[in-house]
Amino acid sequence: MAAHTSEAALLVREDSHGVVTLRMNRPRQFNAISEAMLHALQQELHAIALDESVRCVVLAGAGPAFCAGHDLREMRARPTLAYYQALFSQCSRVMQSLQALPVPVIARVQGIATAAGCQLVASCDLAISTDTAQFAVSGIDVGLFCATPSVALSRNVSPKRAFDMLVTARFIDAATAVDWGLINAAVPEDRLDSAIAEKTARILAKSAVALRHGKSMFYRQRQMSLADAYAYASDVMARNMMEEDASAGIDAFLEKRPPPLHKPS
Amino acid sequence: MAAHTSEAALLVREDSHGVVTLRMNRPRQFNAISEAMLHALQQELHAIALDESVRCVVLAGAGPAFCAGHDLREMRARPTLAYYQALFSQCSRVMQSLQALPVPVIARVQGIATAAGCQLVASCDLAISTDTAQFAVSGIDVGLFCATPSVALSRNVSPKRAFDMLVTARFIDAATAVDWGLINAAVPEDRLDSAIAEKTARILAKSAVALRHGKSMFYRQRQMSLADAYAYASDVMARNMMEEDASAGIDAFLEKRPPPLHKPS
Amino acid sequence: MAAHTSEAALLVREDSHGVVTLRMNRPRQFNAISEAMLHALQQELHAIALDESVRCVVLAGAGPAFCAGHDLREMRARPTLAYYQALFSQCSRVMQSLQALPVPVIARVQGIATAAGCQLVASCDLAISTDTAQFAVSGIDVGLFCATPSVALSRNVSPKRAFDMLVTARFIDAATAVDWGLINAAVPEDRLDSAIAEKTARILAKSAVALRHGKSMFYRQRQMSLADAYAYASDVMARNMMEEDASAGIDAFLEKRPPPLHKPS
Repeated sequence: MAAHTSEAALLVREDSHGVVTLRMNRPRQFNAISEAMLHALQQELHAIALDESVRCVVLAGAGPAFCAGHDLREMRARPTLAYYQALFSQCSRVMQSLQALPVPVIARVQGIATAAGCQLVASCDLAISTDTAQFAVSGIDVGLFCATPSVALSRNVSPKRAFDMLVTARFIDAATAVDWGLINAAVPEDRLDSAIAEKTARILAKSAVALRHGKSMFYRQRQMSLADAYAYASDVMARNMMEEDASAGIDAFLEKRPPPLHKPS
Repeated sequence: MAAHTSEAALLVREDSHGVVTLRMNRPRQFNAISEAMLHALQQELHAIALDESVRCVVLAGAGPAFCAGHDLREMRARPTLAYYQALFSQCSRVMQSLQALPVPVIARVQGIATAAGCQLVASCDLAISTDTAQFAVSGIDVGLFCATPSVALSRNVSPKRAFDMLVTARFIDAATAVDWGLINAAVPEDRLDSAIAEKTARILAKSAVALRHGKSMFYRQRQMSLADAYAYASDVMARNMMEEDASAGIDAFLEKRPPPLHKPS
Repeated sequence: MAAHTSEAALLVREDSHGVVTLRMNRPRQFNAISEAMLHALQQELHAIALDESVRCVVLAGAGPAFCAGHDLREMRARPTLAYYQALFSQCSRVMQSLQALPVPVIARVQGIATAAGCQLVASCDLAISTDTAQFAVSGIDVGLFCATPSVALSRNVSPKRAFDMLVTARFIDAATAVDWGLINAAVPEDRLDSAIAEKTARILAKSAVALRHGKSMFYRQRQMSLADAYAYASDVMARNMMEEDASAGIDAFLEKRPPPLHKPS
């Protein structure tokens, strides 16, 4: 296992057998997403995208909360339209980079995930939280509608539920978040790390090449018409069939052998 | 509180501290949506859209039912294609006007909400019903597929559930409507008005300016690609940050003061 | 009742009072979708689309499983990119033909529905399974991401749930499939046929003309903007109003007579 810190420990990266954990590390600020945090996240996501040894990413937050959203103090210090436009564009790039990564990204959530913190959860491919975690898009409580978080939220949660969260600032508990599809599972706090480890282990046992074919395809095809989506997915799947992992995997299956090992990098 | 009636009491409007209640008032016809009712609704929605003192709208129906859909007797009296095309276009404009309003709209549902009545529920931002309410898109029972209702329904409910309702004319109960995301909550009949009042009170306590920024953005961004949605939402959110409500609200939060009051108009 | 087999009993067709049952008939191969099976399905769907006496289609599989996806042995026998592109395009045409049919299609599911078998379930309008049925898009286990199945799955199931199934190959049980909206209902095995019969009977009792207006409209409008969807659906509904089934059906309703019988063909 290798660990290094970037941007003065704002974001801690740990590498372990192909799993990169990115841990936001401003625990006293509930991991508020400052400009520097956005920059550090973008930098790591860029590096991960280019690193074929990475198989899976876990996005986590140090301390009592996963992430409480933007750094409001910093935002108020530069009150110009141009600054805010640049800031939200930068944040939106990070959110889209999570989807654009060629490997699965799992949110590891404890405490609260609010505003852009809830958006991070919605933007990851998978999410597992403690059963006491809570979720909100509560910017409206300080006079700021969670506009960019609503982009990710409304692509995960049905419209009346998303709208209710956005206009009332209500918190939903972990069980509700599971029921609504915002997260995949909620587990007791002392089981969170093992639940994440089980999920990453399952992913590491699969073909890296096949996962790379699939991940970017999944989100792109969702934005297409049915006919275009099928044309695109058919081509992706045909190319996946030409990979060694598929031919060897299928042959093993047909011969009732265990699947070839996909070794962690 | 001010109340006035329009279109010969077909639609009753009550204003109370920024909340407008529009009550369809044909109780013996289960509030059937006649041409005159559509016209009255369109007129009031147009007036509300221009009135900055309105903070929230409640759409209700007088008598035992919320709304049983179109006025079939009136429809059969003018059996021409041109008439029906104009009628359904007029109805579709009303439905889209609910979404286009700059303030949240809450459906207050009792009894049944069927066909275009169910579409009204689906077209509101939020919906609360009695726990005995029932929902259907049952036009198929009289040989008329609920085509325009399916537009709103299929944007709220997953496709197999929506299709089942459309082709079998089945009624779903209030608990199922909550489970499927068609409505936000179902409460005992004697609690319906207090549940609506609690929801409107929560909305009135928020920044009107921020809600206006958010509402129109929410539905527009859902129709965009992810990249376009983020570009648009980033700009909306930056402009919201430049509003006094956001700066004062954030400053109060940072100084651990209670948020500034957003007085009802 | 008439039954005939096509393509050497690969696919068995039974006609009964307007209901066509298409039963995939390779029970020992868990109804693996070979090229010949795709061809037989496409041929029958084409014939059904032109046959106005057909009112409803049931898609079933003989033996212990509904369908375990593509025929992997056949696929491995012709390992060229061009072959795979043609194969997945052919398969995608079948899936889209299910939606393009002018009559409702119900999946009758027992045992397992995996990979393209799960995609068949997702591509039908309605689906009912035994309560012991299981669903997966598990191609990743042999190194092949279920790309084309993900097109149908992601239009039925929320993204985090679909992604989880795709990258972990996990099976979900019938109750979960109901909860997630992948199927409409799960019933004990000895009630499966009666549940299917009840559903087809309800559909047969409705106006065939109205159902034909509705089915193709339903999926087309979902791909449109809200304004375009309403313009299109308004026109479809106006044309439906001009049909005898609607005028007679509405008149009967207004006169409190039972609806006119829609006789099975």
